[in-house]
Amino acid sequence: MAKHTIDTVLRVRTKREPGHFAKLAAAIAGEGGMIGELTTLAIGEHDSTREVTIETHDADHTARVIEAVRAVSGVVVEDVADRVFECHKGGKLRQISRAPLLNVRDLRRIYTPGVARVALEIQREPARALDLTGIGSSVGIFTNGTRVLGLGDIGPLAAMPVMEGKAVLYEQLAGINATPILVDATNPDHFVETVLRLAPGFAGIHLEDIRAPDCFAIEDRLRATLLQPVLHDDQHGTATAALAAVINATKIAGLDLKSATVGQVGLGAAGSAIARLLASYGVPKLLMADPSDAACARVAGPPIRRAKLDEIMRTSDIVIAATGRPNLISMDLVRRGQIILALSNPEPEIAPEDALFAGAALAADGRSINNALAFPGLFKGALEARAQCITPGMMIVAAETIARAAADGDLVPSPLDRGVHAAVAAAVYEKAQELGRAGTLRLRSGRTYHARAADQE
Amino acid sequence: MAKHTIDTVLRVRTKREPGHFAKLAAAIAGEGGMIGELTTLAIGEHDSTREVTIETHDADHTARVIEAVRAVSGVVVEDVADRVFECHKGGKLRQISRAPLLNVRDLRRIYTPGVARVALEIQREPARALDLTGIGSSVGIFTNGTRVLGLGDIGPLAAMPVMEGKAVLYEQLAGINATPILVDATNPDHFVETVLRLAPGFAGIHLEDIRAPDCFAIEDRLRATLLQPVLHDDQHGTATAALAAVINATKIAGLDLKSATVGQVGLGAAGSAIARLLASYGVPKLLMADPSDAACARVAGPPIRRAKLDEIMRTSDIVIAATGRPNLISMDLVRRGQIILALSNPEPEIAPEDALFAGAALAADGRSINNALAFPGLFKGALEARAQCITPGMMIVAAETIARAAADGDLVPSPLDRGVHAAVAAAVYEKAQELGRAGTLRLRSGRTYHARAADQE
Repeated sequence: MAKHTIDTVLRVRTKREPGHFAKLAAAIAGEGGMIGELTTLAIGEHDSTREVTIETHDADHTARVIEAVRAVSGVVVEDVADRVFECHKGGKLRQISRAPLLNVRDLRRIYTPGVARVALEIQREPARALDLTGIGSSVGIFTNGTRVLGLGDIGPLAAMPVMEGKAVLYEQLAGINATPILVDATNPDHFVETVLRLAPGFAGIHLEDIRAPDCFAIEDRLRATLLQPVLHDDQHGTATAALAAVINATKIAGLDLKSATVGQVGLGAAGSAIARLLASYGVPKLLMADPSDAACARVAGPPIRRAKLDEIMRTSDIVIAATGRPNLISMDLVRRGQIILALSNPEPEIAPEDALFAGAALAADGRSINNALAFPGLFKGALEARAQCITPGMMIVAAETIARAAADGDLVPSPLDRGVHAAVAAAVYEKAQELGRAGTLRLRSGRTYHARAADQE
Repeated sequence: MAKHTIDTVLRVRTKREPGHFAKLAAAIAGEGGMIGELTTLAIGEHDSTREVTIETHDADHTARVIEAVRAVSGVVVEDVADRVFECHKGGKLRQISRAPLLNVRDLRRIYTPGVARVALEIQREPARALDLTGIGSSVGIFTNGTRVLGLGDIGPLAAMPVMEGKAVLYEQLAGINATPILVDATNPDHFVETVLRLAPGFAGIHLEDIRAPDCFAIEDRLRATLLQPVLHDDQHGTATAALAAVINATKIAGLDLKSATVGQVGLGAAGSAIARLLASYGVPKLLMADPSDAACARVAGPPIRRAKLDEIMRTSDIVIAATGRPNLISMDLVRRGQIILALSNPEPEIAPEDALFAGAALAADGRSINNALAFPGLFKGALEARAQCITPGMMIVAAETIARAAADGDLVPSPLDRGVHAAVAAAVYEKAQELGRAGTLRLRSGRTYHARAADQE
């Protein structure tokens, strides 16, 4: 069944007599549309005005449903609005001043001459930029738009609505100032060079929607050079959310993850990060499959070993698939009692109901396993601890925290639960402190952090 | 006299008896401090608690004044706070979501799956990014920190408080989303390359605090390549504000600017832009002086001719100095009835009172001629018109509008008067429309605008 992903809001006036709304609902259903929210705007003597959200799967479908509604006698469609486009108009973010600018005194404080003393103080001691500017609580979201959602290489400009969405999540879920940075460069060297030049302006670097394998080289080079946390969300955000789901899935199915065999099918950005994070977590036996030798070589190393899909399906207690290939896993491959997470969106490698029918103990697709569960708290904790990087240990405590926050029987909690992000941030903060005590520099040397690295190219 | 540029707030408790505050005020004055704001926090039976803002000229001076206040009997200093540093803590900006994120419906609209349709729409028609994202109303403020205020090359990090201040002015004065972008690159080629790669994310490019002559080459190359407005504020913002002041100065002095001889002394970023803008305005005879042959060669061309300082002083009706050299103009050089604007900060080329004493008809220094008068409205108008560049014609209508908004006898209005910025934006918008009709593409071709220019290096 096609997914009903388009919300359209119809403002309709119907006669105030029993049965009119039922006819309208029947007309929508008759064309295969679904009804979402229903809001009454006005009730008159003879008629009512309501907003009805209809859910459809493409533009043609929407048009057919609207046509059917218009054809109902006693119903007048007064307006049609695409809510998604409406809420994108003008952008989803605003850069605002934290203080008013009302008089000359304000101006002299936030601008000249006052600002000169603050600038000189930062010149004297660069680390003070972390508290005397917004840098200390800011994350730059960098993309070149080469792999956006499931849409592929649509370029940085078309990626902007997604980046703004990420920034909204940062602000709303963790109070972090996040700035989308569109980088018009597909060449990984140029991309790295650009991020290095811009790095002084951000306490954290979030990489987003960059195609594999470029994303691996880019992340490696940035991590090696920068003294602030770098996180490629499509790898590590996803891996953290997936680990949380795997922890709960094994709990529900009565398996012990730390003595299980796990098979990872697909080694793109998400799959390779999931395999590595499971290895860090202590899974003793990890099998992986991917058509690309290079992808396997990049991830291989104890306890991760390459295998064919049928060996993985035959021997693994838990199978995680992130291949982007719908229906890759046929029902006859499923082993009785197996846990199967088929994460590809929008179509999974095997539908959960099929996997269960074939004998799986537990099966899920990728819809609920949202990296929005991970990145806001991961960065919040890392920034507050002034951590220099985000380590597998920090991702693991984040995943454990997310797993604990799920309701009994659920794999993960809602990403809209602010408490989850606060708990993740606290756990990551604590882990970062521990790493600090173990020898990592917790406070950056401002000089080093802000050296003119880019000029020494 | 040294300037009293440091504001420190003392919370003081004094006895509620006549004369105690007078003693306190006398103590401050005795050390050469000045009193700014005075706020009463609490009035008790026997004593009052007030916040007294003292104005001093450096840290030692502040300490001496505080010491003197502490020594007054009946006065207790309860707290000392540096207001400037306090209002910089945590930064001056916040990136916030324009809509709440409360339920799954919100999430599906601003993030996946809804956002995918918006991304695809922009891929189909790139110009739609101007209304479906925040790009259409956003300005990137780019700096490498090589010439910050009068502080010189303090680097991009130390420049951040100034950039945040600019962004506050944009938001508070013109409702523009401005984002500070620190570029860690002193090499002009690297700087240009970086701005080109980031350009898709902004409808306007504001260059700030870049040293001369690098700033000229950088601006020229960006203007030649980009299809969105580029403005180097230290040149054109300053020139626009200066032209407004010159227009009013000639009016006050009863001179006709369009038949006057004007001398421009100093051809740095500000000076060379002022000379060129005056030429565009129609000043028939312009003399210029600068020790650098390269600077003179860059600006020369009818009606601008190089001259020595004494010739300029002898023959010009109006002299504008922007040299950074205090006391360059001695009193004996001043011609009777001349207008002299000595713009260098913090110390002018000649003190206004000295110029007037020597016979000038009108004299001013740079304190009131603030480029904050110009850039918010210039960009507001240009962005609303979807202009591809900011032309001298747009700067001239901005300057005329600013000049008209000044009170009788004043050179310029307050930059905090929101009405000025709205009027400047309207005038610039109208001028841009006119240019559009004259043949300039008003609506960018999205494809061209967002071509992957940076990858074709």
